[in-house]
Amino acid sequence: MDQHTINFQEKFTKFSEHWSPKIIAQMNDYHFKIAKIQGEFVWHSHPETDEVFIIIEGELKIAFRDGISLLKEGEMLVVPKGVEHKPIAEEECHILMIEPAGTVNTGDVGGDLTVEEVDWV
Amino acid sequence: MDQHTINFQEKFTKFSEHWSPKIIAQMNDYHFKIAKIQGEFVWHSHPETDEVFIIIEGELKIAFRDGISLLKEGEMLVVPKGVEHKPIAEEECHILMIEPAGTVNTGDVGGDLTVEEVDWV
Repeated sequence: MDQHTINFQEKFTKFSEHWSPKIIAQMNDYHFKIAKIQGEFVWHSHPETDEVFIIIEGELKIAFRDGISLLKEGEMLVVPKGVEHKPIAEEECHILMIEPAGTVNTGDVGGDLTVEEVDWV
Repeated sequence: MDQHTINFQEKFTKFSEHWSPKIIAQMNDYHFKIAKIQGEFVWHSHPETDEVFIIIEGELKIAFRDGISLLKEGEMLVVPKGVEHKPIAEEECHILMIEPAGTVNTGDVGGDLTVEEVDWV
């Protein structure tokens, strides 16, 4: 590890709040964001972009209108653009998300869980 | 796990050859590619795009003209576009790469290690 290397576990020690994504890297106009999540998020979609979830630690359910996907550590899923989904984590789960810079966490629905300004860690 | 969930370890069981990336997912116009690598690759750069390496298993050194980065499991690195680099793995290493669809593995140098047609697994 050196100044260019990004260690997921080390980044997760930098914050504790749930549903508050933090940027850890940029690739072209895409952001790599990590988040600690627990409980149920809101139903939403991203009309403009696909969104990738990678599970770093724990388990995540992603509900779709036609079923539920279960993701464990070492697994990923692409939510296609425009597809309604709802992340659910029964226990605290650590995730990596990849999506275009500026993608809003609550997508097209907004609400209290919306994070307007995403910080780097 | 279901039909939407992608399990990295399961995908790595699908092939054994080194330096032969396989596509496992697409997000917008980006591909998620896995590869088993061992030995030294060629110096090259990608003039058009950044490139992300995530280590799934093992250790990877990425040599730059001004130093070497060491990446271990659970670590990632962004190679900025146009920056010469050379991946080196002393033991077999399993990596995930993220870059625009159509990005050629040997970038601007070509040669015997170039993979023109990247298959899905």
